[in-house]
Formats: sequence, C-alpha cells, structure tokens
Amino acid sequence: MRLPFDLDDPILARAAWSRIAEPADRQALALVAAAGPAAALRWLAGTGRVGADRPDGIGGLEQARERWRARLDGLDPRRELDALARLGGWLAIPEAAGWPEALADLGAETPFCLWVRTGALGPAELPERLTPAVSVVGARAATAYGESVAAGLVGDLAARGVGIVSGGAFGIDAAAHRTALAVGGVTVAVMAGGVDRLYPQGNERLLAAVVADGAVVSELPPGAAPRRERFLSRNRLIAALSQVTVVVEAGWRSGAHRTAGVAAELLRPVAAVPGPVTAASSAGCHRLIRQGIATLVTGADEVRELLAPLGSAPLAEPSAQPGLLDGLAPADRQVLDSLPLRQGVTVTALVMSSGLSAPQAMAALSRLERSGRAEQSDGLWRRSRVAR
Amino acid sequence: MRLPFDLDDPILARAAWSRIAEPADRQALALVAAAGPAAALRWLAGTGRVGADRPDGIGGLEQARERWRARLDGLDPRRELDALARLGGWLAIPEAAGWPEALADLGAETPFCLWVRTGALGPAELPERLTPAVSVVGARAATAYGESVAAGLVGDLAARGVGIVSGGAFGIDAAAHRTALAVGGVTVAVMAGGVDRLYPQGNERLLAAVVADGAVVSELPPGAAPRRERFLSRNRLIAALSQVTVVVEAGWRSGAHRTAGVAAELLRPVAAVPGPVTAASSAGCHRLIRQGIATLVTGADEVRELLAPLGSAPLAEPSAQPGLLDGLAPADRQVLDSLPLRQGVTVTALVMSSGLSAPQAMAALSRLERSGRAEQSDGLWRRSRVAR
Repeated sequence: MRLPFDLDDPILARAAWSRIAEPADRQALALVAAAGPAAALRWLAGTGRVGADRPDGIGGLEQARERWRARLDGLDPRRELDALARLGGWLAIPEAAGWPEALADLGAETPFCLWVRTGALGPAELPERLTPAVSVVGARAATAYGESVAAGLVGDLAARGVGIVSGGAFGIDAAAHRTALAVGGVTVAVMAGGVDRLYPQGNERLLAAVVADGAVVSELPPGAAPRRERFLSRNRLIAALSQVTVVVEAGWRSGAHRTAGVAAELLRPVAAVPGPVTAASSAGCHRLIRQGIATLVTGADEVRELLAPLGSAPLAEPSAQPGLLDGLAPADRQVLDSLPLRQGVTVTALVMSSGLSAPQAMAALSRLERSGRAEQSDGLWRRSRVAR
Repeated sequence: MRLPFDLDDPILARAAWSRIAEPADRQALALVAAAGPAAALRWLAGTGRVGADRPDGIGGLEQARERWRARLDGLDPRRELDALARLGGWLAIPEAAGWPEALADLGAETPFCLWVRTGALGPAELPERLTPAVSVVGARAATAYGESVAAGLVGDLAARGVGIVSGGAFGIDAAAHRTALAVGGVTVAVMAGGVDRLYPQGNERLLAAVVADGAVVSELPPGAAPRRERFLSRNRLIAALSQVTVVVEAGWRSGAHRTAGVAAELLRPVAAVPGPVTAASSAGCHRLIRQGIATLVTGADEVRELLAPLGSAPLAEPSAQPGLLDGLAPADRQVLDSLPLRQGVTVTALVMSSGLSAPQAMAALSRLERSGRAEQSDGLWRRSRVAR
C-alpha cells in the first residue's frame, strides 16, 4: 500500500503514528523509537523493511501489524494537521523546537507527538512556560473545600510563573485552570481525546479560555474520541509534563491516584492535601500519604519547597498583575475563593469550605456583595459576573 | 535533721521524694536511682552519706541539696498517703505490684512514684488494664470535628479493651475520657498537680467518673498545684503510660506536640489525625506528619495496626457491653458523637463537625430528640441528660 504523504517528514510520520496506534501502545512506541517513524510506516505499509533496526525486544509485531493496518485506510495526517492549524495550533515532536523535554522521562511510553491547540504559545514558548510546572489534579466530585484549596495553591504558584498542568475536568481540574488564568498565569489542559473537542462540554468556555492564554494538548489527533482507557494513559502525560504533582482531593479510587503513581515512578515529588477524615473526597489523599507516595502539604509554600529544593534557584516573586483576589481582606478572599461561578451555595456550605465561622462568612459575603463581587438569590450565593 | 517517718519503707521514702523534688528533676532522679530512696534521704537530711553509691554523673549536687532541704521542714508523707487513702487510692512504686512497667522506658526521667486515685483499679489491675493502652491527646480548643474523631477512635479502641490515657483537659482529652467511659472501657487521666484536685474544675464531674471507673494519677503528691512546667513534665507520663500516642487536633504549638515528641523519643509509634488545611486546629497534626514524627491515621483500624503490628496477637473483639452509641444508625451516631454535653451548638457547627449535610444532620437530630438522646433550646443542640 502506498501512503499519500511524505513519510520522511517527521511531523507527518509522527502525526500518522498517533492515529494508527493507541496511546501508550508499547509495541508501536518501541518500533518507532528503534526504526524511526518513516521506516516503521514503510514496514507497516509493506513498502519497506525494518530489518536490522527491528529491536529484538518487541514481541508479537506481526499480530500488532494487522491491528495497525486497519487504520491505514484513508490515513492522511495532512488533513488533521490542517484541522489543527485552523483551530490555531501546531504539532510538537521530539525532533523539533516546542517539545517538552520532561516527556522523555516516560521512556518507552513517551508519546509520538503532542497536538497543541493554543492561541498564546508558540513552539518557543511552550516548553519554557512549563519550566517549572506543577500538575494539580483531583476529584471531579470536588467539595468547595477542595476547590478553595486548589485555588489557593494555584493562585500562588501561577502568579510566580509556575505553569499549571491539569486535565480539564470538573472539580479540582477546573479550579486549577480557572485560578491560573485569573492570576495571569499559564495553564495547560491535557485531553483524553482530540483537541478539536473541548471536553467535558460543561467546561467548554473555561477550556476555550485555556486555549486563548495557555494550551490544550493531546497525544491523539483531532477527531479522536475521549475513551476510558485514553483517560488512563492521558494521566501519565499530566504527571510527566510537570516537575511536581499535587493531589488536592481524591476518593479512595481515582484517576488522580494513578497520576500520582506515575509521577512517583518518574521519581518526581508527589504532594497531597489532607482533609477531614470524615470526607470521602480526601480518602485518596490520605491513602497516598500513608503509602509514602505523597508528601502532606498544607499550602503553596510547601509545594514550592518540593519544586525548588533548598539550594536551587528561587522561584520568581508573584507578578504584579492584579488578580481577582488581590487587595481583599483574608476572610473575603477565602469566601470569594470558595464561591462557585454557576450554581449558588448556602452559607452553611460556605462555612464548611472556607473554615470561617458563620458570622465571619456572613460579614465577608455582605462586603463582597457591596463591592459587586458576590451575588445571591433565594439564599444561594455565587460570584457575580464581574468577578468571574 | 531527723525525719519523722520510716525511711526504709520505700513507699514512704518515694512519696517523700515526690514532694521534695519537682517532676523530671534529673539530679534527684539520678541520685535516688543510684543510692536508693532511703540512703538519698539520709544524705539529704545530713544523717547519712551516699558515698561510693553517689554516681559520678550527677553534677551540682551540693546546690541541689540546698533547694531540696527547703522542703524537708514539716515533711511527712504519711499525711499525704492518708489523704490519698481517704480519697480512695494507693501509691504505685517500682518495688511493688501496681507499677506500670512501661514507665521504665523513661530512663533517667522515670518518676519516683505514681499517686493513683481510683475507685476501680487495685495494684493488680492498673498495669494489666493499661496493656495495651493508647494515649489520645489534643487541643483544649478542639473543634466539634476533632471531638467527634476522638470519640470515634476511642469508642472502637476502648470497647476492645485498650486502655485510654489522656490529660483530663477540655477538648480532645475530655472527649477521649468520656467516650472510653461511655463504652465501658478503662481510662486514666494524668494530672499536672495532686490527684486530690480534679483539674480543670469544669471537668470535675467527668474526672470523678474517671476515678470511679478508671484512675486519675499524678507523680506529685496531694496538695501540689498544677503549674505550667508541671504540665510539660506531665506530658512525658502520658506518652510513657501507653504503647501508641494519637494526636487528634493540635495547633502549631501545643502540649500535644510535646507529648508526641516524647513518645517518638521512646521509640513508640505516634499517630496524627489530619484535618482541613484551613483549620488552625489541625496545623500541629499536619506538622507532626510532615516532620515524620507521626503516621497519618484516619480511623481506629489504622491505630490498631500501630498497636498490634501484623503477626502479633490480635486485639479483643469489641465487648458486648452496650454503649451509648450502640444500635444507632451511622448518621445518628455521628451527630450524637458530635453533640456537646453542656453548652449547645448550632446546626451549622454540627454539620461542620459531623461531615453530614445539613438535611442529614437535621433528620438525625430530630430522631435523636424523639428518642430522648438530644435536646435543643433557642436553636442550640446538646445531649440530653439520659445520654450523658
């Protein structure tokens, strides 16, 4: 079979492989690593041999070939690269500028390429803005407490120029991306499907803002649907793109736990935020700490210690760009931090999440309402539009 | 100077030393350990010499002698032992039955004796009922969350026959003692002053109940006032009387932190319960975990692991004796656990401490009220008398 594009262009060849093989397909990754993407494609199409380059360690290549060949029909990565270009974006490959070197630590699971959708970061900026970076992950079913803690951590780190990597999901992920944007930082969302689809749909506006000021990335080409096993392999990219992974809230079993495990395997520091032992939403964090996988952290300063150990270059001071929470009294800040954007919450819920007493929370709400930052209807409080 | 009692009776001689020297006075302890309490008293009174028995390691003995001699005037330990006997109690000394062998690990800081006030435990029972034992300590200014977690831990452990040691203070200490009594367990309160004075006064009734079913103990004789430095040295006894120390809530600086430090120096396992990072009342626990002094624990099963490591004899199953919380649905149990005895709390505070939603907490309160376990006035809820 003759493939209709220039196999010797590593961009085209790697884009093709990202469509042919599933993420973290170790056979495909090993073959491409050993033979190069072009020779591997020629072998697959039957127009060349991998011969002496074929590594002995790759078993079952003949069966895998049948699986991969099913995807050769109609394969033309130029179409997907065009789609990416129309969305605003570029393909990061190991052979060119724009490749985050941190991914190399994944070894045999290093992706073929990274589809980058961005309105802000060119190949010169992406790796630079992710150095250093922290991954902030956690439960979709986060509590107001968890979202508030995530916002506190990210607000500090992003304002100091630390890139914030997460998965674009509801809950902790969304709080991390939103806060990074609010303080003028850089944030990257790693998708489990193609970057043409901002998933989940409920976060579409947030993720559009991430594209505008940061990047939405994936190892899968546009058009690829997010599927269960793709979420699992996506998590390894979240861990690998940063130097430190922080789990803010996680149930006993959760994707965040897996991301933390990958980060630990990469010998990168993992941190977890504790919470009430009565909250199922913190059980995964406590488990990570008890297992010795994660260090307990209570604030951004302790995450910064993991990022820049004693003796290394200090992080930048927080930038002067005014953030949403700047100039507010601590109590007002805590309450505004805890207020959701959409569905309102009761004062009781706010008291639980903010750590303030009911009278303190009420006083803060009334100040935030007067300054136009918060609004209520039927006793449910949310941020007002100007504060979003 | 001639002392008016039989110096060769180790009970009288040790009782005398507990009045002459402050707790953890290393010179006095070393002298008594080397020469024996009788010879040391004769040397102090000027009627004998410690001679060859005097250990080289004890410096400044002459100055210390002046300090100690000031307390010889009117010294007669028979008076204090009589007072103890009238209160119901006995003196534990290393030479006789009733001495908790675990104290020996304190080495140079092992107390002269232990004044034991009890209506339940004779010399044959005390050491036995403290094997095994867990110390449960924490902030006086505990939150409802902390008291609820303490009650959960102690309820499980005490029902299995684990002795509960604490300091008799407000907050976590009181919750520990109260719950141990409620489930028919054994609990010991270690005072910083004489056992004639049940301190603090606000806990007098609770401590009277501890005397009735367990013991209130001190290394100081009746009449000794609780003083700041005596609280600090008292904490070493709390750590030494148990095999595991659990810190439930503690501010950044707290006595519980010190107790945990002593336990760690004794190479005994220390556990700490995490909480919201926004709560100052959990900051000390998080600090202990971060310092590697304490293991994070989220429940009684994890404390039991520390107490009876894999391969050792298992703990007893919970006794069948009906406790205050038996037969209640989990939510009702959690709420009743969190309800204070005296000053009532709002539903908001209960929601914060119980980990339940407001509607769940309200429903539980209404069930508890119907069954006569809880009562309210002016929107403040507390346990009703029958449930205390």
